[in-house]
Amino acid sequence: MRVLGIDPGLNISGYGIIEDNAAGVSIIEAGILKTNDKLSMENRLAELGKELATVLIQFKPDVMAIEELYSHYDHPKTAIIMGHARGLILFKAGEMGIEVVPYASTRIKKALTGNGRASKEQMQRAIQIQMGLKTIPEPPDVADALAVAYCHLHAVTRNEMITV
Amino acid sequence: MRVLGIDPGLNISGYGIIEDNAAGVSIIEAGILKTNDKLSMENRLAELGKELATVLIQFKPDVMAIEELYSHYDHPKTAIIMGHARGLILFKAGEMGIEVVPYASTRIKKALTGNGRASKEQMQRAIQIQMGLKTIPEPPDVADALAVAYCHLHAVTRNEMITV
Repeated sequence: MRVLGIDPGLNISGYGIIEDNAAGVSIIEAGILKTNDKLSMENRLAELGKELATVLIQFKPDVMAIEELYSHYDHPKTAIIMGHARGLILFKAGEMGIEVVPYASTRIKKALTGNGRASKEQMQRAIQIQMGLKTIPEPPDVADALAVAYCHLHAVTRNEMITV
Repeated sequence: MRVLGIDPGLNISGYGIIEDNAAGVSIIEAGILKTNDKLSMENRLAELGKELATVLIQFKPDVMAIEELYSHYDHPKTAIIMGHARGLILFKAGEMGIEVVPYASTRIKKALTGNGRASKEQMQRAIQIQMGLKTIPEPPDVADALAVAYCHLHAVTRNEMITV
């Protein structure tokens, strides 16, 4: 199964496409979708939609995994702007017939570290280990996208977990 | 000039397309875009995107007018979900090369009633009068969409205002 994890944002959305195979979990592709903050909102979103479509068409994920919305936000306006990007990303998945599975932050943390309240550092290290990477994925948006993708594979395949 | 006003929402988005001409302002078309709340978020957004594209293609507005984001929201999670619809709507405009102009709520009220703090009832009545309608447009999402479209025409053409 090929899973696309997304960490949505208007400035930067992280994405990570992973697959499970005999050797474990491998990264097919990961990176960021970036928009030009000098453009108007509608043109930035048009840019993001185009970049995302390219990724979806090229890598044909079976499913998209994304973090659930929280019930509380410290910065509602920032969260609403993130919501603009998230809405567009979900729309693109829906339009292309890709199922979207949302996961709570605690569940993502638990899948990767065994601890639903893991710190950012614990998470980054767990991603590095689970994906067999030499270094921690950068920027953090990529690590977060890989984490939610991994959480989905874990939920579906019940892979054995390495607790760190 | 043909202006599309939008009041975005995931359940219901109101839209109103108006034009200025010798006789004043006339409504070309108005209505709602509704999504099925039994569907998944991505499929609801796909539905909304498709319905909006139909309106954009059929009525070819020159510009889209939409209410600005507030700095404060009583229900951030609801606002973030509205943000999903708003993001998709702006994306569609950007993709189709339609400029989007956001207006503050107070400016919309002022354009229609002369009073930036007008009540909902004053606004509804002003919309009815300005558009020459026999009744107040229903549901309120349609009235709100017509109001922001009117605000744009007013800002651009400085039409004389009937203060109510």
